[in-house]
Amino acid sequence: MTTTLDFLNQCSAAAFAETLHGIYEHSPWIPQRAAEQRPFVSLAALKLQLQTTVRNASRDEQLGLIRAHPELAGKATVAGKLTSESSGEQAKAGLHLCSAEEFAALQKLNADYNAKFGFPFILAVKGPDGNGYSRQAIIATFSRRVKNRVDDEMAENLRQIHRIAELRLNDLLGHVPQLGNTIIAWSEIIGAWSDDADGLTCAYMTAAHRKTAAQLLAWMQEAGMQAHIDAVGNVVGRYLSDRSDAKTLMTGSHYDTVCNGGKYDGREGILLPIAAVKHLHERGEKLPFHLEIVGFAEEEGVRFKSTFLGSNAIIGQFDLGLLDKLDVDGIGMRDALHGAGRDVAQIPAIARKPEDLLGFVEVHIEQGPVLLERDLPVGIVTSIAGACRYLLELTGVASHAGTTPMTMRKDAAAAAAEIILCVERRCAQAPSLVGTVGQLQVPQGSVNVVPGSCRLSLDIRAADDATRDAALGDILREIEAICLRRQIDVRLEKTVAAPAAPCAPWLMQQLNDATARAGIPPFELPSGAGHDAMTMARITDVAMLFTRCGNGGISHNPLEVMTADDAEISAQIFLDFLRQFKPA
Amino acid sequence: MTTTLDFLNQCSAAAFAETLHGIYEHSPWIPQRAAEQRPFVSLAALKLQLQTTVRNASRDEQLGLIRAHPELAGKATVAGKLTSESSGEQAKAGLHLCSAEEFAALQKLNADYNAKFGFPFILAVKGPDGNGYSRQAIIATFSRRVKNRVDDEMAENLRQIHRIAELRLNDLLGHVPQLGNTIIAWSEIIGAWSDDADGLTCAYMTAAHRKTAAQLLAWMQEAGMQAHIDAVGNVVGRYLSDRSDAKTLMTGSHYDTVCNGGKYDGREGILLPIAAVKHLHERGEKLPFHLEIVGFAEEEGVRFKSTFLGSNAIIGQFDLGLLDKLDVDGIGMRDALHGAGRDVAQIPAIARKPEDLLGFVEVHIEQGPVLLERDLPVGIVTSIAGACRYLLELTGVASHAGTTPMTMRKDAAAAAAEIILCVERRCAQAPSLVGTVGQLQVPQGSVNVVPGSCRLSLDIRAADDATRDAALGDILREIEAICLRRQIDVRLEKTVAAPAAPCAPWLMQQLNDATARAGIPPFELPSGAGHDAMTMARITDVAMLFTRCGNGGISHNPLEVMTADDAEISAQIFLDFLRQFKPA
Repeated sequence: MTTTLDFLNQCSAAAFAETLHGIYEHSPWIPQRAAEQRPFVSLAALKLQLQTTVRNASRDEQLGLIRAHPELAGKATVAGKLTSESSGEQAKAGLHLCSAEEFAALQKLNADYNAKFGFPFILAVKGPDGNGYSRQAIIATFSRRVKNRVDDEMAENLRQIHRIAELRLNDLLGHVPQLGNTIIAWSEIIGAWSDDADGLTCAYMTAAHRKTAAQLLAWMQEAGMQAHIDAVGNVVGRYLSDRSDAKTLMTGSHYDTVCNGGKYDGREGILLPIAAVKHLHERGEKLPFHLEIVGFAEEEGVRFKSTFLGSNAIIGQFDLGLLDKLDVDGIGMRDALHGAGRDVAQIPAIARKPEDLLGFVEVHIEQGPVLLERDLPVGIVTSIAGACRYLLELTGVASHAGTTPMTMRKDAAAAAAEIILCVERRCAQAPSLVGTVGQLQVPQGSVNVVPGSCRLSLDIRAADDATRDAALGDILREIEAICLRRQIDVRLEKTVAAPAAPCAPWLMQQLNDATARAGIPPFELPSGAGHDAMTMARITDVAMLFTRCGNGGISHNPLEVMTADDAEISAQIFLDFLRQFKPA
Repeated sequence: MTTTLDFLNQCSAAAFAETLHGIYEHSPWIPQRAAEQRPFVSLAALKLQLQTTVRNASRDEQLGLIRAHPELAGKATVAGKLTSESSGEQAKAGLHLCSAEEFAALQKLNADYNAKFGFPFILAVKGPDGNGYSRQAIIATFSRRVKNRVDDEMAENLRQIHRIAELRLNDLLGHVPQLGNTIIAWSEIIGAWSDDADGLTCAYMTAAHRKTAAQLLAWMQEAGMQAHIDAVGNVVGRYLSDRSDAKTLMTGSHYDTVCNGGKYDGREGILLPIAAVKHLHERGEKLPFHLEIVGFAEEEGVRFKSTFLGSNAIIGQFDLGLLDKLDVDGIGMRDALHGAGRDVAQIPAIARKPEDLLGFVEVHIEQGPVLLERDLPVGIVTSIAGACRYLLELTGVASHAGTTPMTMRKDAAAAAAEIILCVERRCAQAPSLVGTVGQLQVPQGSVNVVPGSCRLSLDIRAADDATRDAALGDILREIEAICLRRQIDVRLEKTVAAPAAPCAPWLMQQLNDATARAGIPPFELPSGAGHDAMTMARITDVAMLFTRCGNGGISHNPLEVMTADDAEISAQIFLDFLRQFKPA
């Protein structure tokens, strides 16, 4: 039994609530309240309103909703012991086929979870792609989430309830996220090709990397694009306009990954535009400009410790000296490219002419928790933060841990500890500001020696350089004061100082408009991570559309995830943006 | 021209001041004030009074004394350019023979030092043994001290002035620290035998270690002792009493070292008693008890990661299972002992009978700055702190440094930073309490990743277990609170929990009395470091005499130093203690 959005917008409030009965477990107040907010311009808007209704409910109402859900572990049975309850959504996850060990693990997790939180563990077992979690994945998720804090876990349960409701609404309205499913399916295919046996590692010019490039090329061609792989390995597809005077709007992202990374980082920004072009091509729709999709060959810097190789070639700033760099196995970049059939002599010819370009728009998974925490599927980037990075070497006096009174120490690690907390404190003072000490080590530290030296890294970013530099200045002054007071020598080495790349307001506005037309309130946020758009900003106007990142916003990690529905909304916004695009 | 202590005690105040004119540069007020404190029971007492007079002077008087000294760099000339000033104490250091580079380095250091402190750099160039620093050592010391804080450097200058005065007083009174010189000279001989080309490393049963043992054996025999090397490599010498009913008083310390360690750590406690026995033997003096000196073969645990091998054998608690341990080269302890001619089957027979023992008294360099800061050459140990050690593994969530807002992080290194500062703060609350985080590492930390894990060590000690355990309890509670607040998982592994070993009051009293008879106010302090006396305390009463440690109290380091005069005072106190010894 399916219904339509038109019916839901036009029927009585009682009929609305009645139709949506069963979307939430035993909580009729949710559709009742949402009914008052009609009409909804899209299914996405309806979903968002239902989620907002839950979000705005009292804590008791939220707890009631959570407790209305049966325990997941209660659905589990050891294989062969079928019960009447082994059915429906849980059955898809195969919880009725548990081994004795899995069954015991689930019961233990369930007992621990209930004891800690006082409410049941909720998981949308159909998962982000709707195809269902494996039993192993359910147990892993359960194990991870049982460590959360109460407030975080309550919010996660409400998000899982929303995901269950979303999938039920899709069924109810006969909605299939076609583009989203394509993007997820393609991500799975190339996500399986890795340099390592476990996880996803796709480094520049490895076998997995070249296989991925060939597949991207094939998908671009199937989508009706003229495509080729360029001299640094970028996969470039052009969806040509019929207009003789057409300029080019560029989009794209990178297909290389970090070590043991996520399936969507970079790749979404290639696959989503290909899916969008395929959609246009199948309908015979042409655009009044050439759309060029670039699968940038290299952004992460894993293999040759040099980042943005692909986009630097596109803007004509590829440093040819890098061709002499060696990877850890002693293989040079030049040889790696040659072995892949690339002609390095052609690299300078890759450079685009700025005057031919209308702009560059990159779609990317957020890689952070901001959209997730705000229950928004997409956001529009205001600026790509530039990182300022330092390596610090602190030198005190190594001395005997037993015989050096606390007042007579020159402890390099204690100075580092003060610096870490100073960075944390200062960088909490502005919304887009972040500061990280990611590397920290007492070299040859010994349990019974007061640390005579300590090495640490510092990474500070903000949406605008003024905010970042103000924080950096305060932190550097504080480091000096800490080290002076503690009699620690400090050696600072600045390793990176990239300026922030602000997004072009006229492009942001068109992304905002397309987002609003999709029924989603446009939300702007800075990007703390660097992206190819940063490089492209040196020759053309840029903008970015972020897609919500699940699992607490984790990225550069196998747990990185997006839902097919969020991919769909992003793709629809991107398509609408293309159709309505007006040059600056 | 020499004088005598008797003359100085009996002459007029004016004659006293006149005789000591020239001991301090242009500062007649020092002997004038000291004259009022006569008589002095010893040269040591006179020296201490002069130093106390300076210590109690006003800051302006102290600065005046410092500024009365000519600049050391002013004495330097490039070799061949002799001036009339290239004479006296500076000439011994060869400062008139500088290379052009050394001369330039000295002038630069001098300019930096004066600019920073506003007073001249003072160094007793005759050094701790009276034989003079090399030019290289002077430049290294200058380079190190120019980094100090003003207050610390002023105190160090006053200590150097005291050392200059001490050497001038020795000359004036014709005093030669015979035992001290012997101890220093012997330390130099065995300090040159190392497992490494640079520095002093003497690990269990290496060639350097065996050569050292053979030399100790020879010196014991030359000093009139019956001596042998036992089955674990302890070098044991007995200075036998004539009495048929004599029991045994034991003394000694270890002759192995840490990697790149100091020349006095452990060794002083063997060489000083040998020098004392030699002194007795040369005079035909016998004691009413057997005196046994043990050069313990192993205390530091460098080679086989197991400490106190020598003293554990002496108390009959050597774990024979340790013989199967391998060093980093895969050589087993059993084979190492066999290769050195040791018969491991005889190890159990090493065990001493407690009923034969009168006690154990260990002389040791302090390895810390407490006596140095109090201007005292010796101190009496109250208790040997027992260490409590933990390894901590903190687990948070590794996340993207750019995209994870400060409020959404689970940063394991930030939690470690809080723990380090908590340890530092809590352990400053009791005098004998010390707490150290000596190992600290974010495994595979990356500049752009919020640390998902961090490993650190914790070492807490105090003179009494109640003080230590109270601090430990507070710190463990605070670690739990920090990790709970930050959502960090913590895994604690307790690796060591040794009880404190209190010294026997009756032995301490006899050391106190001997110290007072030497003209030095007895000063009691805990030992934060572990010592062989800790092991010996399990079978007999123990006490320890500490000798002042120069260079800021640094130890386990080539900079570890003691003066021949301090070694002399310690030896004289030990001799006096032996002569006056009364069993409990």
